[in-house]
Amino acid sequence: MSATADIGVTGLAVMGSNLARNFARHGYTVALHNRTTARTTALVDAHGDEGSFVATETPEEFVAALKRPRRLLVMVKAGDPTDAVIREFAPLLEEGDVIIDGGNAHFEDTRRRERQLREQGIHFVGTGVSGGEEGALNGPSIMPGGSPHSYESLGPMLEKIAAKADDGAPCTTHIGPDGAGHFVKMVHNGIEYADMQLIAEAYHLLRAIGGYDPQQISEIFRTWNTGRLDSYLIEITAEVLAHTDAATGKPFVDVVADQAEQKGTGRWTVQIALDLGVPVSGIAEAVFARALSGHADLRAASRGLPGPQAKALKGEAAATFADQVEQALYASKIVSYTQGFHQIQAGSDAYGWDIDLGRIASIWRGGCIIRAAFLDHITAAYEGRPDLPSLLSDQRFAEEIGAAQDDWRAVVAAAAHGGVPAPGFSAALAYYDALRAERLPAALTQAQRDFFGAHTYRRADREGVFHTLWGGDRSEVDAG
Amino acid sequence: MSATADIGVTGLAVMGSNLARNFARHGYTVALHNRTTARTTALVDAHGDEGSFVATETPEEFVAALKRPRRLLVMVKAGDPTDAVIREFAPLLEEGDVIIDGGNAHFEDTRRRERQLREQGIHFVGTGVSGGEEGALNGPSIMPGGSPHSYESLGPMLEKIAAKADDGAPCTTHIGPDGAGHFVKMVHNGIEYADMQLIAEAYHLLRAIGGYDPQQISEIFRTWNTGRLDSYLIEITAEVLAHTDAATGKPFVDVVADQAEQKGTGRWTVQIALDLGVPVSGIAEAVFARALSGHADLRAASRGLPGPQAKALKGEAAATFADQVEQALYASKIVSYTQGFHQIQAGSDAYGWDIDLGRIASIWRGGCIIRAAFLDHITAAYEGRPDLPSLLSDQRFAEEIGAAQDDWRAVVAAAAHGGVPAPGFSAALAYYDALRAERLPAALTQAQRDFFGAHTYRRADREGVFHTLWGGDRSEVDAG
Repeated sequence: MSATADIGVTGLAVMGSNLARNFARHGYTVALHNRTTARTTALVDAHGDEGSFVATETPEEFVAALKRPRRLLVMVKAGDPTDAVIREFAPLLEEGDVIIDGGNAHFEDTRRRERQLREQGIHFVGTGVSGGEEGALNGPSIMPGGSPHSYESLGPMLEKIAAKADDGAPCTTHIGPDGAGHFVKMVHNGIEYADMQLIAEAYHLLRAIGGYDPQQISEIFRTWNTGRLDSYLIEITAEVLAHTDAATGKPFVDVVADQAEQKGTGRWTVQIALDLGVPVSGIAEAVFARALSGHADLRAASRGLPGPQAKALKGEAAATFADQVEQALYASKIVSYTQGFHQIQAGSDAYGWDIDLGRIASIWRGGCIIRAAFLDHITAAYEGRPDLPSLLSDQRFAEEIGAAQDDWRAVVAAAAHGGVPAPGFSAALAYYDALRAERLPAALTQAQRDFFGAHTYRRADREGVFHTLWGGDRSEVDAG
Repeated sequence: MSATADIGVTGLAVMGSNLARNFARHGYTVALHNRTTARTTALVDAHGDEGSFVATETPEEFVAALKRPRRLLVMVKAGDPTDAVIREFAPLLEEGDVIIDGGNAHFEDTRRRERQLREQGIHFVGTGVSGGEEGALNGPSIMPGGSPHSYESLGPMLEKIAAKADDGAPCTTHIGPDGAGHFVKMVHNGIEYADMQLIAEAYHLLRAIGGYDPQQISEIFRTWNTGRLDSYLIEITAEVLAHTDAATGKPFVDVVADQAEQKGTGRWTVQIALDLGVPVSGIAEAVFARALSGHADLRAASRGLPGPQAKALKGEAAATFADQVEQALYASKIVSYTQGFHQIQAGSDAYGWDIDLGRIASIWRGGCIIRAAFLDHITAAYEGRPDLPSLLSDQRFAEEIGAAQDDWRAVVAAAAHGGVPAPGFSAALAYYDALRAERLPAALTQAQRDFFGAHTYRRADREGVFHTLWGGDRSEVDAG
């Protein structure tokens, strides 16, 4: 076997196959390998004419087919299977070769693998790949971590197969060392959860309070999609809501079981945010909303609980409400991204990744699920001021949220009065109001902690650490 | 050294010392050990007259001082120090001896330690101890896990030193095997976070919208403490708010820095709840609120963001609002406990602990930070129906929350309109409204997932797993 392949893909389920085809379509020679050869054969049979493939049967053949430095893209299930593949291939590789993990690995696993392989001189690149099956084939958003050196060899290839933003820029960049790529992909997914939850709440409010039917709401979303909310998720929401179930003639959304499932990345995002001390309440509420929807037993037991009968608005009032919901959705979306970008910044600080936040927004503009016109403004915000403390500190976003806030407040209040759950909208508003508060009641919390646990406190008016003798004469003592 | 001690305590910082004194005051002979003997000597010098202590210097002496089966209470910092102590003492012990870890260990660590020591025939009891220093001395709430056998020997001693509820019942019980005790203590702390956050929001609303000063709010809390909110935390809130800072003459709560700190257990509660798929939004918002308060830089950068000027109410309107806040606080508290007990049930199911939820509420009635009259009703709810799907399914709580809901909604709306962050109140309300909803927009979420990722869906009207060919003719195919 002569070494002719520019890259190899092992693991030829649909994501791996589509990425392999994407490379081949861009003129790269792609070595193929799968644990069982049937998939390899099937891929070549079906799509062999799309480009140059080298089908191999054994790990040894596969490695031998690759030009040096070898680039192996691993597309297997995250977790133990990834480790198994690494154990199988690493001994066959040489210094300078690159293993790329394109699965949804936890970034801590990626850090561990990168460290271990670095000792052997092998570059390990954990990369996020967003856009699903379709993106993998036609252009995903790609978020590679790993060494800068590995990106020198790999980057040009990724830039070829990646999605292109409207301005033609490829939706990939070197995110940062070791686990940075998988970390950013994780937060991307968390933001996707939040986006979807906010859309779900907007739909629910338009229906229960606005009095619109799914077809009308589809039209509303279609209109929104021509404005600042222009995005893939808003677009497909309009599609889904316009769809009629053939079997029953009912709106499709009414025949789907209202239990949303989830994989791990939304949950991880929140868990890691908690470790980093970053409030990501919008993402958390989205994850909880899915979990809650799945507790059929609990919901069945709670259906009789009292609540108001939401009265549907009509005519002009309904149209006004729809406009308010757009404002609430947009403002809440700004908060979600503020929280998500805060988490990326915190991760970058904690792990020394030196991530360029503007570039992250930029490479999410195409290929991935959360692609949106909105991301141009985030890119611009960080380009204008790379040390922006938070997206809310950007003048444009501050002005937009300032203009939206009255309506946002009205929608949260209407949801509360109407008995419609809007955890995402209200969590986002509470975050906004907490962040801008002159004083927070955290002072009371801290004082309570000092009372019952002698946890001490700081003062607002001078340096030091203090404790009040609550059980004694309540004088204050220095506890520094 | 003759074996005369009923129990030994190693690690004589304040919690260890106070528990040792508590045992001694109840007539037990207590062996003492500390890494440095100075603490041991100091304890005997200061409190030797309170009971029978056996001061020891080496691990061997310590173990030799204990009657069989030996009972060693380890009171060191959670984490590696606990493992180090176990490594030191385990080789000196014999089959049937009991090591008790009274620190705030993560329950997964406790599960691991219990498993390892069980192989040597040693019982390992991870136990939650709540009530701080004062509780440790005068009666804490104690939540021991471990084998039923270990509780036979240890339980009577714990029942002696534990707090007693108003009806005289000791605030301890065998929670369940291995990590059950530390798990329940963790959730206890999570609920404590939520309770404190709700109180902080009530205070903030009474001040910013109700127009009351801290002294007046103290009086309001004092009144609440005579009703259904009767609890330790409400009581100390009144104390803290009544306190005047001697240095400035200002209300104490106004001189404390408004940055609340936290240790790990609130965060763990949310992280584990995410793994278990249990929505604990109230606890999560409490943890996030503390984290947010500590981001001084972010807050400073956000102070100028636009918001409404909350207009303070006066006279009768203020008094009415205060009553509404009491309703909102009580209703949100019911939700917090509903979420916390759901998590305990889910943990019990996942790990096979068979936890008696009514007993848990019962042993929190004394000694611990969240002790409250309210817990009697939770105990009664589970005694009346041990398989209660959720606290909200209990008739009493359902009626109370039903009676509170109008005011609760009004308070959440007032917070939104007034620009006062109330993440805990609004998350609790959203949870309530989501749980009782006939249909949730999770159907839309699930449909979107099918659209962009072919994740399939179930139908509300018949069994099966389906996928719509969104990219094709949009017909539905069987995907089971």
